[in-house]
Amino acid sequence: MNFTSEPRLDDGVLERDFTLGEIPGTLWMPESASAAAPAPLILLGHPGGVGRMYPRLAGRAQQAAADGFAAATIELPGSGDRPRSATADQARADLRQALQAGERVSDDIVDRLVLPLVDQAVPEWQAALDALLALPEIDGPVGYSGGVISIGVRLAVVEPRLAAAALFAGSYVPRAILDEARQVAIPLHVLLQWDDENNDRQMALDLFDAFGSKEKTLHANLGGHTGVPQFAGDAAAQFFARHLR
Amino acid sequence: MNFTSEPRLDDGVLERDFTLGEIPGTLWMPESASAAAPAPLILLGHPGGVGRMYPRLAGRAQQAAADGFAAATIELPGSGDRPRSATADQARADLRQALQAGERVSDDIVDRLVLPLVDQAVPEWQAALDALLALPEIDGPVGYSGGVISIGVRLAVVEPRLAAAALFAGSYVPRAILDEARQVAIPLHVLLQWDDENNDRQMALDLFDAFGSKEKTLHANLGGHTGVPQFAGDAAAQFFARHLR
Repeated sequence: MNFTSEPRLDDGVLERDFTLGEIPGTLWMPESASAAAPAPLILLGHPGGVGRMYPRLAGRAQQAAADGFAAATIELPGSGDRPRSATADQARADLRQALQAGERVSDDIVDRLVLPLVDQAVPEWQAALDALLALPEIDGPVGYSGGVISIGVRLAVVEPRLAAAALFAGSYVPRAILDEARQVAIPLHVLLQWDDENNDRQMALDLFDAFGSKEKTLHANLGGHTGVPQFAGDAAAQFFARHLR
Repeated sequence: MNFTSEPRLDDGVLERDFTLGEIPGTLWMPESASAAAPAPLILLGHPGGVGRMYPRLAGRAQQAAADGFAAATIELPGSGDRPRSATADQARADLRQALQAGERVSDDIVDRLVLPLVDQAVPEWQAALDALLALPEIDGPVGYSGGVISIGVRLAVVEPRLAAAALFAGSYVPRAILDEARQVAIPLHVLLQWDDENNDRQMALDLFDAFGSKEKTLHANLGGHTGVPQFAGDAAAQFFARHLR
């Protein structure tokens, strides 16, 4: 991991960009974190495009820092300045066409759109975790927050350092991920926008039902994809405060 | 309203029993409430049998008082020491029989069990509200918390003094109540136990979907009817703190 910017201090939070190989990322650290008092870490998931997502990511990082947590994110494969994937672009075009035609989005499109992304992204988040946990100011436990929910599910299954996850049910979920969900055992906090235009509500409920975790909570709120109310963000923060301290 | 006990002081909360005509009830008041600084009020719903439910009701009242709210409950028709209803007893026997036979509980049984209860209980809660709001230490706004969810739905439709409701999706819901739910416009916080043995999950989701409120949140947690986790109670308390202050 190479830091590519000087730390910027904003409201008690040190923000710093880095690269991990070719992958750009950002780390936010509470000013109070030190080698003597290392902070737990929340990985901030997102739909891809950290530049476009920056204001929302920084807002979530500020909240995490206020609770004493470091936060970090990396760009997704095929998004931002990273090389595009012909497979993903084709799947995205097919998705758009199906939506415009008012057709049901087929399992095949969802698989082509999501599964290669999960296969590539999850090892990258794990590599980021290796690098971040090597910093003296950061320690476990680790949480994953946000979407792409299929990335969160896979990470929860394969990454033993993940202690809790707050997942946003805001994207298409392949059938295969539904099966993986049964193997998830960590505490989960699932956020569902009841009228999410990008999301199949029944699939989200099926996914919640499938999770193997003994503690799992679904918070459904009225509104569309980007209409998550402030109090829902607060509830997710409280979930991490319960599990990462 | 006649007070039938001296006030008992427990941990900063004044508890006092009363009767409203033939109906017994209990009022909990934060010690700090006064005519100069009256408290908002939370009506504590329950499945009937305030004696049996006392520990849980008192716990919820303590939480309400800690947030600066008065809380009150009254016995339901046909429960506790109140005269039993032959109709309700018959419906309850039919329900038990259907459950023991592993049959689907028919709409007819649910209607006979719940609708007369709602018809009788709601005006009683409104009469209790008249009496409670006449006390100098209590003021609006008013919240309703708990089950029977059909009572909460009807009350939210007909009672304009109700400003917010935290409803427990833990009982059978007649189809007619689903229609009334569309008229509900106040902020709602709905609690669902995902594996509630007394409750049809799909019906609970349909009911949540039907509510006309612009702000509605569903909190679903793993576990059975009585397994509501502590953090879910905390979240309901925060909902009232947002809406009753």
